[in-house]
Amino acid sequence: MLTYSFENIDADSMYEHLYRCIKRDILQKKLTAGEKLPSKRTFAKNLGVSTITVESAYAQLVAEGYLYTLPKRGYYVCELERGEETAPPRPEPNRTEVTSQVPRREYWADFVGSSVARDMFPFSIWVKLLRDVTAGEDETALLTDTSAGGIAQLRRAISDHLYQFRGMTIDPEQIVVGAGTEYLYSVLIQLLGRSRGYAVEDPGYLRLSKIYEKNDVTVHHIPMDASGIIPERLEESGAEILHITPSHHFPTGIVMPVSRRYEFLSWASKGENRYIIEDDYDCEFRLSGRPIPTLQSIDVMEKVIYINTFSKSLAPAFRISYLVLPRHLVTRFYETLGFYSGTVSCLEQMTLARFLSEGYFEKHINRMRNRYRTLRDKLLAELRQSPLADKVRISEENAGLHFLMKVDTHRSEQEVLRAAEGEGLRLSFVSQYYMKGESRRPHVLVMNYSGLEEEKIPEAVARLCRAVLG
Amino acid sequence: MLTYSFENIDADSMYEHLYRCIKRDILQKKLTAGEKLPSKRTFAKNLGVSTITVESAYAQLVAEGYLYTLPKRGYYVCELERGEETAPPRPEPNRTEVTSQVPRREYWADFVGSSVARDMFPFSIWVKLLRDVTAGEDETALLTDTSAGGIAQLRRAISDHLYQFRGMTIDPEQIVVGAGTEYLYSVLIQLLGRSRGYAVEDPGYLRLSKIYEKNDVTVHHIPMDASGIIPERLEESGAEILHITPSHHFPTGIVMPVSRRYEFLSWASKGENRYIIEDDYDCEFRLSGRPIPTLQSIDVMEKVIYINTFSKSLAPAFRISYLVLPRHLVTRFYETLGFYSGTVSCLEQMTLARFLSEGYFEKHINRMRNRYRTLRDKLLAELRQSPLADKVRISEENAGLHFLMKVDTHRSEQEVLRAAEGEGLRLSFVSQYYMKGESRRPHVLVMNYSGLEEEKIPEAVARLCRAVLG
Repeated sequence: MLTYSFENIDADSMYEHLYRCIKRDILQKKLTAGEKLPSKRTFAKNLGVSTITVESAYAQLVAEGYLYTLPKRGYYVCELERGEETAPPRPEPNRTEVTSQVPRREYWADFVGSSVARDMFPFSIWVKLLRDVTAGEDETALLTDTSAGGIAQLRRAISDHLYQFRGMTIDPEQIVVGAGTEYLYSVLIQLLGRSRGYAVEDPGYLRLSKIYEKNDVTVHHIPMDASGIIPERLEESGAEILHITPSHHFPTGIVMPVSRRYEFLSWASKGENRYIIEDDYDCEFRLSGRPIPTLQSIDVMEKVIYINTFSKSLAPAFRISYLVLPRHLVTRFYETLGFYSGTVSCLEQMTLARFLSEGYFEKHINRMRNRYRTLRDKLLAELRQSPLADKVRISEENAGLHFLMKVDTHRSEQEVLRAAEGEGLRLSFVSQYYMKGESRRPHVLVMNYSGLEEEKIPEAVARLCRAVLG
Repeated sequence: MLTYSFENIDADSMYEHLYRCIKRDILQKKLTAGEKLPSKRTFAKNLGVSTITVESAYAQLVAEGYLYTLPKRGYYVCELERGEETAPPRPEPNRTEVTSQVPRREYWADFVGSSVARDMFPFSIWVKLLRDVTAGEDETALLTDTSAGGIAQLRRAISDHLYQFRGMTIDPEQIVVGAGTEYLYSVLIQLLGRSRGYAVEDPGYLRLSKIYEKNDVTVHHIPMDASGIIPERLEESGAEILHITPSHHFPTGIVMPVSRRYEFLSWASKGENRYIIEDDYDCEFRLSGRPIPTLQSIDVMEKVIYINTFSKSLAPAFRISYLVLPRHLVTRFYETLGFYSGTVSCLEQMTLARFLSEGYFEKHINRMRNRYRTLRDKLLAELRQSPLADKVRISEENAGLHFLMKVDTHRSEQEVLRAAEGEGLRLSFVSQYYMKGESRRPHVLVMNYSGLEEEKIPEAVARLCRAVLG
């Protein structure tokens, strides 16, 4: 039987250790796809650890897609996604198996990740614009412009876009373009200081905390009430940088009311090094209602840094995001970080600039929004006709690409998740997005519908009923 | 007269302080283009600082393109480059002037920066490949693939390329693609540890040190002998990560001999956390001679991380670089940083993969190499027929995109640089690339010819003669 040493591992981290051991063996193909793992009880006895340790490690591996469960049969190793295998035209290196993919299970329907349907992006227009750009007057600039903040044309197009769609009046020079928000977070850390405390919402995006941690900054997980982060708890934490998503919090869907926004602006004004990072990642997809003005637009103290991305609104594979810096930080940016080269290819920046300024972006967003509305309406309609109809309470269905669904079931969250795995569904509960705090909202599913295929919805709801209700 | 406060500034940093004050005023347009600055002596007297302080601050600002000098007339504020001004279709924000460009003077001929002629890049082929890619089978992947290490096709194409052109036998899975080497340095810091000491070559690329400093790691500037970094001084420094350019050191042009390479491999093998970053940034442009095998290819201890970029070989505006990680670091990368999204758009990665695998890259490099050889030969020929002919000693003319030129003149380096400014030439001496050490090679010009226009060479040499000889 599979065995690992637990010498010199303290009780606290046994689960973590076991999780790592199994993961390593899967990555190195010592455990192969389809292989059954020992039952929790037997394995625990054999290793000399508690059943809970094994259970937690297994659950984590299931969540990350390394293992899957078959109801009443046990835990199995997932097939890891691999690139197509072609015979290389050269001697193979003496290889230890390594994998370059975070393995993902293929789900029959995914309510967690988001993807974009292949017919949704106007590739032919994109190619046409790129051809125009390369045939234009700017070839030399195309080859050589590596400005740290991004090319002038794109910054101007973004500033026009923000004016028209977000009512924000900003100077193109306040914009810094970068290869994805994750990259821009690291720019902000260099700009604002690595020694400051960074406060994030709890619950919230797990990867945001991870990014801050990998950049060696102190992260404070601040609990929330119905309006967002609790100001007193922020103050207590001593954090100087507040990273929030006021226009649509994930996963709770909270839209921060104006009063709370002013509270945070006031908080920021009380310290020279205090800043607010306003993460506006999916503002384009509010499905109804008037969009709330951004914090950036009501900030007269130069305390708000606005960040947004085209990876959500164009497609994930486009790595173009941007910051809007307050003016004094623009000066600081160019003084201290202006030597950096830009991170987005000039060709792509110019193409996107045209895509925005010639109105294609707006059309694209409208098509996407319609698609998402159709998906949401169909999903809600199916749910209303299903056995779940009187067992669920749905909320926040207008804010963005997901809604919340409180389910009334005798099953535990863990049981629902496992059953869903067995059904080929990927689900998540609000409780899974808590980092430090404890969820006081049990049994609330986060229903991200943006990656669903429309024709699968009836069957997906049927499977969901079985997973939730048993 | 212009004045600044020097209260609470210690003598050491007066120059730095003055430099910052003037720069800020230029950026904020308090000092405007063409405005004359006070003479060094008067200004120094007025501020109560030494003439050397003012001279150093001015020299720095000249080097960075904020000021220019007119011989015997003094220092003037440069015109800062700005995007074209178009009337925005909306109310202008209440603006404090900010600039989003690191200002650059326009030089008549530039022997420091590198740029690419507009006819050198096959845009039509690039557009065609992009169209093929978007019309292909992979549209869904095109929209959704954000793998941390880069897409499989590109990694495979790079690994084939490295086999054919660098004799390196590596697994595509060892490759991590990223938006420029500067970004990948920050990935390496996250992978290897921010608390380790990083050793760099002195002299060397100034921006490399800057990047490490901005990422809050300790940088050790290690002096060099004729073979590269001096091993004893590396050992003394206590650094654990050694960042070197063995195939072509900038600016000295040193190609590290094999014996020294083995010394460093041996050094690395003596510490668990010791690694060598092999920066191979312009290996494609060795103009003659057999390329030296990479350190990566003779490393059997998994101690070498290879890094290279397409920004030099395609064009600066392409932000695509890559790492080749030793196998155990591949595992560590995916375990600790695999959650990151990739930073290069999938469209561009796929297009580059085809550009490489269909042979266009090789053709492009050959054309570029021929162009550079022509420029170099023409420049050398003009120099041989000029009054400088018996006043210069040229070396390292085969290693890459620059050569070294020791000049015999009664003028100081500062005088030559100022005279060159007056002639519209941008020049640099080896001494300017020292960070901690003192140059023992005075009067050696670094002649980067990659950005020259061929037809300007005769006149550029005439101006050079005047600047150097007076």
